Amino acid sequence: MRLKEIGEFGFIDRIRSGCLIRTARVIKGIGDDCCVFKTSAGLATLLTTDMLVENVHFMRQAISPYKLGRKSVAVNISDIAAMGGTPREAVVSIAIPETLEVEYLDALYEGMKAIAGEFDVNLLGGDTTASPAHLVVNIALVGEAAEDEILYRSGARVGDVIFLTGTVGSSAAGLDIILSKRSFDEQGPLLNAHHDPRPHVQAGRIIARLKVATALIDVSDGVAADLGHICRESGVGAIIEGSLIPATSLVRKYCDRFNLDFLHLALHVGEDYVLLGTVPEGEADRLATALRSEGCEFFPVGTIVAGAGLGLRGVDGSLRAIRPGGWDHFK
Amino acid sequence: MRLKEIGEFGFIDRIRSGCLIRTARVIKGIGDDCCVFKTSAGLATLLTTDMLVENVHFMRQAISPYKLGRKSVAVNISDIAAMGGTPREAVVSIAIPETLEVEYLDALYEGMKAIAGEFDVNLLGGDTTASPAHLVVNIALVGEAAEDEILYRSGARVGDVIFLTGTVGSSAAGLDIILSKRSFDEQGPLLNAHHDPRPHVQAGRIIARLKVATALIDVSDGVAADLGHICRESGVGAIIEGSLIPATSLVRKYCDRFNLDFLHLALHVGEDYVLLGTVPEGEADRLATALRSEGCEFFPVGTIVAGAGLGLRGVDGSLRAIRPGGWDHFK
Repeated sequence: MRLKEIGEFGFIDRIRSGCLIRTARVIKGIGDDCCVFKTSAGLATLLTTDMLVENVHFMRQAISPYKLGRKSVAVNISDIAAMGGTPREAVVSIAIPETLEVEYLDALYEGMKAIAGEFDVNLLGGDTTASPAHLVVNIALVGEAAEDEILYRSGARVGDVIFLTGTVGSSAAGLDIILSKRSFDEQGPLLNAHHDPRPHVQAGRIIARLKVATALIDVSDGVAADLGHICRESGVGAIIEGSLIPATSLVRKYCDRFNLDFLHLALHVGEDYVLLGTVPEGEADRLATALRSEGCEFFPVGTIVAGAGLGLRGVDGSLRAIRPGGWDHFK
Repeated sequence: MRLKEIGEFGFIDRIRSGCLIRTARVIKGIGDDCCVFKTSAGLATLLTTDMLVENVHFMRQAISPYKLGRKSVAVNISDIAAMGGTPREAVVSIAIPETLEVEYLDALYEGMKAIAGEFDVNLLGGDTTASPAHLVVNIALVGEAAEDEILYRSGARVGDVIFLTGTVGSSAAGLDIILSKRSFDEQGPLLNAHHDPRPHVQAGRIIARLKVATALIDVSDGVAADLGHICRESGVGAIIEGSLIPATSLVRKYCDRFNLDFLHLALHVGEDYVLLGTVPEGEADRLATALRSEGCEFFPVGTIVAGAGLGLRGVDGSLRAIRPGGWDHFK
């Protein structure tokens, strides 16, 4: 079905049901100039926004609309997780090329609603518009957190242990499969890591509640780039232990098969959406225990040092400086 | 200067200063995974988002980047005004074609910061990305309002007076000048009405505080379409008095000169960003006085009636049904 058969308001009516995941504290959802809700007394409000642009962030041929919907919400939820917060209310802006079928949009919104349901997030409104060429999805997400639990990029201190809450590199391997058009018989989980990342909200809440971590970020641009953000905002440097970077056996197998440098994928590509944080050495065990006792993970991967810049210690013990480069949209 | 000379993070550093208009209750602005702020105890939170897409909402040749920046923020502020709220914190997503110069973006953000300053709104973060072809600007804006003052589209009742807080049709005339490439010696104010609309936040606050209006919306899609939204959400119909639709003498002169139907421009084109509301007949004078005493305007333009649909009474007294049609992005 073509969109012009139902029009903008027919489309809004079509996507409206199932967007309200949780009614408590919601005063007005889709259907007015703004959505209206109450935030909890005593909590700070978090606000984030992320835009996914066709042929920049995704190729329509490579990702199903359902998973694109999931991912567009997931990357925003991950930003809330990276502050130690709880995601709450979202609004969706979408620019739609004329050629796109209504069924494609139905699947896109089904994906958004599915992940919204899994993370107790409401879709409360948005903006729908035509697009001259490319599909663009922008989501803005409000979350909340106790002010004294929020984790910023700026708190890392010399001597802190750098940790990850999950394996990295699988999303980069999935992207590599798409871009290189390589054939790999076990590609499913790698493609899925790229198309359907799972934000680490639970780990973020555990880390925030324990109040021992000093900085936190999600791995969107790559471990090196995101650690670079922490170092820049905290005024410190960091050494990454290459041998400690956690990966699934499948991504290592993929790298072996095609003679790829796993550390390049893990450090410089990104989109893993696990959390990267820092914690004083004396508190690392307590944090690791807290995370593992609730089914989350804690991988120490390096140390915060004085100065600036990033060093990578190789498996052979040699130390070399690396650029904190990840994805730069304009370079 | 080309964007690739400074890169994504150089660009963010460049736009960062001047975004924090007001520091009270802001905990973290640009530079982390989310922005963080406190909302006032006892107030409800409003959230709106609007996306402007090149060649759909604007043509880069027709509007200066400074005014495009102003308009992209203004249309969101107008949505907060339409609930009777106060705009507070904004995040900006922007998808930038490779060919765009840094100086264009500087001017765009100067426009955003200027109107943000005029309305005491902070720009607290966002997302910057490449675009394969077209410039896209999305803004999400958080506002607040006392819960018992918020005005929805759904409260209009039979017998209510329909009112506008400003003249309409000038923005449509400005758009007509751009699209038709007509030459009109006094085109400046008409183009400006289209490119630099002024959201009616003050009028919205006066209306909300008085607690007599029953419904409120901003005129973005055209008086007929936006009144249609109120009627649909309220389960009522409406009669518009064509002779009462307020306009500047300049827009009437423009319509006369080119033999255009003023009521078509005013009712079916939109983008005036004045407020359209309903108020019980017995309270209309009190509301008019309150608005006028603070330098705002009140124009009665029709009556809410039982049933559904819109009627337009012509200057000759004849009544005809009109479609609540305004802009539909997909039809």
